[in-house]
Amino acid sequence: MNDTFLKACRGEKTDYTPIWIMRQAGRYLKEYKAVRAEAGDFLTLCKTPELAAKVTHQPIDMFGLDAAILFSDILVVNEAMGQDLKFYEARGPVIENPVRTRKDLDRLRVPDAEDELSYVMETIKLLRRDLKVPLIGFSGAPFTLATYAIEGGSSKNFLNTKRMMYQNPALYADLMDKLTDSVQAYLAAQIRAGAQVVQIFDSWVGVLDPSDFVEFELPYVARIVAGLKKEFGKKVPIIYFANNSASLLREVKKTKADVIGIDWRIDMADAVKQIGKRFAVQGNLDPLALFLPPDKIRERVADILRKAKPLRGHVFNLGHGVVPETPVEGVRAVVDAVHELSGK
Amino acid sequence: MNDTFLKACRGEKTDYTPIWIMRQAGRYLKEYKAVRAEAGDFLTLCKTPELAAKVTHQPIDMFGLDAAILFSDILVVNEAMGQDLKFYEARGPVIENPVRTRKDLDRLRVPDAEDELSYVMETIKLLRRDLKVPLIGFSGAPFTLATYAIEGGSSKNFLNTKRMMYQNPALYADLMDKLTDSVQAYLAAQIRAGAQVVQIFDSWVGVLDPSDFVEFELPYVARIVAGLKKEFGKKVPIIYFANNSASLLREVKKTKADVIGIDWRIDMADAVKQIGKRFAVQGNLDPLALFLPPDKIRERVADILRKAKPLRGHVFNLGHGVVPETPVEGVRAVVDAVHELSGK
Repeated sequence: MNDTFLKACRGEKTDYTPIWIMRQAGRYLKEYKAVRAEAGDFLTLCKTPELAAKVTHQPIDMFGLDAAILFSDILVVNEAMGQDLKFYEARGPVIENPVRTRKDLDRLRVPDAEDELSYVMETIKLLRRDLKVPLIGFSGAPFTLATYAIEGGSSKNFLNTKRMMYQNPALYADLMDKLTDSVQAYLAAQIRAGAQVVQIFDSWVGVLDPSDFVEFELPYVARIVAGLKKEFGKKVPIIYFANNSASLLREVKKTKADVIGIDWRIDMADAVKQIGKRFAVQGNLDPLALFLPPDKIRERVADILRKAKPLRGHVFNLGHGVVPETPVEGVRAVVDAVHELSGK
Repeated sequence: MNDTFLKACRGEKTDYTPIWIMRQAGRYLKEYKAVRAEAGDFLTLCKTPELAAKVTHQPIDMFGLDAAILFSDILVVNEAMGQDLKFYEARGPVIENPVRTRKDLDRLRVPDAEDELSYVMETIKLLRRDLKVPLIGFSGAPFTLATYAIEGGSSKNFLNTKRMMYQNPALYADLMDKLTDSVQAYLAAQIRAGAQVVQIFDSWVGVLDPSDFVEFELPYVARIVAGLKKEFGKKVPIIYFANNSASLLREVKKTKADVIGIDWRIDMADAVKQIGKRFAVQGNLDPLALFLPPDKIRERVADILRKAKPLRGHVFNLGHGVVPETPVEGVRAVVDAVHELSGK
């Protein structure tokens, strides 16, 4: 068992810098596309444990990554809560019954994750049988799930979400409470099923100004972290990835997550200065930098590794998910560069 | 003539804090929609000086704003350079002949702005006849115009743009040179026609990490600023609005623009710390905050004004354009709050 990633998350000394890649099981791999075609559609792939486990495995051996991440989608929580979820090739995810009123909210429930998301737990159990690297479970963060719950899909301005925050804060708070309870129970179930680390993905939190982050998201994420810490102690590290969070990092630390995931927009040296030495940090190469020639990828990796040195722990990752058009050689180049330059 | 805005841009003492609002002439006003309907479509509105001047005027008297901004669109430059531009209600702008190869680039020319964008100059001249507040001219920044030129429209990952930057930097540099020359000539023509301040809009620059900003955008913006300063001296202030730039501000200063426009994601106190006292700053209320009740808008305005106090000059604005669904009362509330709280 390669436990370098676990050690880095806990801030313990490691022999080299571990790396995994957001969306490492994904459309940039023809092997993934073959399984996806076999499943028929994206949601069926998420809900078929054998296939989900299969795609989770694919990039691990191919590239020598230091952690696996459960193949799933953040929106399965919204679906289990009672929202009608569909994925369209062009439009992306669509929720047919968005939350706009108290009545809409009353129809959503906190799901019994072990039961209603049993396919996720089964995937985790399958994976733990033969994975040689740690397994990361994950969930969307409450704010990010709220944007989908309210907007009914992707959004440009998050108009409906912010309108609810600003004009009906009581309804927003009640929705966030329900989402927070759901996320906490879901992550706890994943840990009980075998997830060794969990990541909370906050893809859209970067649209909040710092005061709104403090009022409308921080308390909920902090509650999830505290709840999981109470139940599982220090043995399961928690990663909080706040996308587009350069202006939020001082507040992000208050979630008390063990690992702060950062996006590519911020220079690592700047992030280290803001986050300080009590946390491990995960990141942060621009996913599009994988289109660079290998020697240039190597230069950027060296720069990030050097700047991350003062940290308590560093997990190398991209600053967001790898994009479908990414050349496989770029993925190989970043993994090799991280390992070679950090002394593996 | 109300010159409070000009003074604030120059860092001179003002009696109160001036305010204007990005997209202040826009779809949130029924009066605008009436003129737009009269024009038929958006581009025709931009190209009909009488109508463009009419919508530019609308919000000034209605709200008592301290500056007017030419009604136009950043993509008229791409069109004048030889790109086929269309606006679709749902999809937004589309350029039918994007730049992907050297041949595509060779077909684009640096337009003679006075001639090929004469409708803009005419609008400016019309406006200067009777405006009682300063008139802002504007252009898109080279990188932002390049994303449209290369992607052919809006984009999620800016895949084609970054691919060109990373895989064909010589072609990217030549495109940027052409765009930079076009923008500089266009802004110079606007100033000669009567624009008293110019703003460079960098809507998409926030997708660049700091090192890419330094390599792929900063030199071009700096060249435009230096060129305009050489031609017009200090009398025409230049505003550089870099959207989503919390992690770029220390580099943004190197453009030497007089006024740094900031988006809403960063706390004003943090921006002041990074930008320092040699620049004026413009911003930065979240456009969606105009959906708040008036007393809450007032609280946020007070907070920004207080934090902006140490600055050499402060121009109040939103942190991005006002959105079409915005209640007119919200716009009125922010203008009144800025004026009252800053001592008008």
